[in-house]
Amino acid sequence: MALIVQKYGGTSVGTVERIQNVARRVKKYHDAGNQVVVVVSAMSGETNRLIGLAGEISANPVPRELDVLVTTGEQVTIALLAMALQELGCDARSYTGAQVRILTDNAHGKARINDIDDTRVRADLNAGRVVVVAGFQGVDENGNITTLGRGGSDTTAVAMAAALKADECQIFTDVDGVYTTDPRVEPKARKLDRITFEEMLEMASLGSKVLQIRSVEFAGKYNVPLRVLSSFEEGGEGTLITFEEDGVEAAKISGIAFNRDEAKLTIRGVPDKPGVAYNILGPIGDANVEVDMIVQNISNDGTTDFTFTVNRPEFGKAEQILRRTAETLGAREVIGDDRIAKISLVGVGMRSHAGIASQMFQALSQEGINIQMISTSEIKISVVVDEKYLELGVRALHDAFGLDEE
Amino acid sequence: MALIVQKYGGTSVGTVERIQNVARRVKKYHDAGNQVVVVVSAMSGETNRLIGLAGEISANPVPRELDVLVTTGEQVTIALLAMALQELGCDARSYTGAQVRILTDNAHGKARINDIDDTRVRADLNAGRVVVVAGFQGVDENGNITTLGRGGSDTTAVAMAAALKADECQIFTDVDGVYTTDPRVEPKARKLDRITFEEMLEMASLGSKVLQIRSVEFAGKYNVPLRVLSSFEEGGEGTLITFEEDGVEAAKISGIAFNRDEAKLTIRGVPDKPGVAYNILGPIGDANVEVDMIVQNISNDGTTDFTFTVNRPEFGKAEQILRRTAETLGAREVIGDDRIAKISLVGVGMRSHAGIASQMFQALSQEGINIQMISTSEIKISVVVDEKYLELGVRALHDAFGLDEE
Repeated sequence: MALIVQKYGGTSVGTVERIQNVARRVKKYHDAGNQVVVVVSAMSGETNRLIGLAGEISANPVPRELDVLVTTGEQVTIALLAMALQELGCDARSYTGAQVRILTDNAHGKARINDIDDTRVRADLNAGRVVVVAGFQGVDENGNITTLGRGGSDTTAVAMAAALKADECQIFTDVDGVYTTDPRVEPKARKLDRITFEEMLEMASLGSKVLQIRSVEFAGKYNVPLRVLSSFEEGGEGTLITFEEDGVEAAKISGIAFNRDEAKLTIRGVPDKPGVAYNILGPIGDANVEVDMIVQNISNDGTTDFTFTVNRPEFGKAEQILRRTAETLGAREVIGDDRIAKISLVGVGMRSHAGIASQMFQALSQEGINIQMISTSEIKISVVVDEKYLELGVRALHDAFGLDEE
Repeated sequence: MALIVQKYGGTSVGTVERIQNVARRVKKYHDAGNQVVVVVSAMSGETNRLIGLAGEISANPVPRELDVLVTTGEQVTIALLAMALQELGCDARSYTGAQVRILTDNAHGKARINDIDDTRVRADLNAGRVVVVAGFQGVDENGNITTLGRGGSDTTAVAMAAALKADECQIFTDVDGVYTTDPRVEPKARKLDRITFEEMLEMASLGSKVLQIRSVEFAGKYNVPLRVLSSFEEGGEGTLITFEEDGVEAAKISGIAFNRDEAKLTIRGVPDKPGVAYNILGPIGDANVEVDMIVQNISNDGTTDFTFTVNRPEFGKAEQILRRTAETLGAREVIGDDRIAKISLVGVGMRSHAGIASQMFQALSQEGINIQMISTSEIKISVVVDEKYLELGVRALHDAFGLDEE
């Protein structure tokens, strides 16, 4: 008998019929002898409807009250799912975040979980009941209702799994697992049976939006085995997100992530003095513009070139700031390009395998793709290329590293 | 400085615009130096929408989960009203029933309040905040969400007023007070400035559906001064529901209530033995048919006639049962009439004034209205007449007792 925490998102519970489908699936796991805790989101569209009501009243609603408002979304779902389970003859009981007592700090709208009281939930599990928990919400030590921020239901599921020392935390989504890359770009993309937490973090932050990053970090921190499954197709095994320590012989490369939502800015001929990086990026950060890749080359004739990427919608704003900085610093010029794409190779295997980078650059050059920027971490190599080469580049790399083969 | 508890029902908070109107009105009371607690219902239509969702899942949803579901209705309203108050610069904080800690028994769907913890609410009031409380809901001692039954927001308001020893509990409705009778029947009907609790109970149970009966009983029990006001017209004083003990010289008659939703059944020629009333009404009660008026006359030749009224929709069911009873008891016949109406004269003054009954019967006979049944209590006389005489009878009595005059 295993203890499983399952999480179903807003689309999976978007209608009464889908809630009934989820109930049938949960019952199967329960009938197979498992203890099951189900974490659910609000029915799709509901959270936006509620936020819309608040928006009619205030351009800037009080965060405490916004949390009271939006948490009704999941409360509706837990009640309906518990009813649907009972209707199938499967004893079930629902809990809001406050009822479980998912204790958080009081940062309304982006609260962090401090503690979970598992007493009541465990008693219900031991009594043979399925426990249905509202995702995304908690309560602070003064009894105020809080939310974990959008998409926080994944975090609730992982935190419940950690608190209950669950055997597995299953995240049901609209995809049937994590792929080597986006199948819409490379039809030969293959579903991975396993991926490490670190790879998943790199994949997620690079735009493979299967799981909320914080929940993956959380799962890693508390060693919660996480599995991504499809909520619409039954029978699949999904993708298990594991710890490298499992001793699995990791593939060199697990996948290829990409992002076409960035823009590139370069300031050229900056007099190279200590503190130049801070002088350039300080004003950008002050304006709340997030910077992703940063590249600085060695200086030449006492001046240096400095390049970084930002989210594309903030390109104009960042460029203006950079031009003012260039004047102040006496730089030669500012150039920008918002038609770029970032392609990243991710894999824990590259730690111990030399030559991955050169193999990557070779594959791209064989297709005539010019590399504009390069940045690397222990388990990832990212390059920036002209936007028009994105699909070609992804497919070339997928082929070069044989990702379509097991 | 007074402490006022105000209650606004579903129609009064039916749209965002109406919630903003309520906020403006609450702010006026607050700005005038009062401490204000506001109890609100779900936006009109919302509770039915939620019950509809449950109905799609189960013909008989688990009561515990139904309560989890429907209580989201008021939770949405408290959040929106608190936001609207803050938007007007009026500091406010919302509380669900569980957050206040309105402690109830665990009779889901019809729970009774056992205790209210006023600590947090009082702290907010003392800090100058308006407190917004979700009506209709509470929590049992195990943390399960409960509801007080439909219309229970009135009860929440009265209970909060009792717990806080409020100076007044104001119930805002779609009428501007309690009238001597229904103005749609008698255009000369007059709004009462005051009415006693006992009269209000008789008026409410007789069909003047201004307030939920239980909330009136509750207010009487805890000596909470209750006022009915219009939520749409400002400036009115409404009707104050007082204790007779206030020393006010009560009018003889306060009002005329009526009900056209009853039907009458008579069993004739029943051998008159001890236990006959039980033998007749027992099977009716066992079938969950509620009986209102009961009249039995003295026996004649060893047999008696026994008449009672039931809700009109249950007439057919009750008649079937009664026919079987008649056979068993050897009664002569069963006759029924579902085209009747009940008219009731209500007033604490009739306790000490003789002749009210004869004055009533005279007024009716002058209009040629035949009285079919009579039943009396300390502060009420009810008669059953042919349905077609309802309006005529109400107007005749309204005139006869001079109810249009102060």
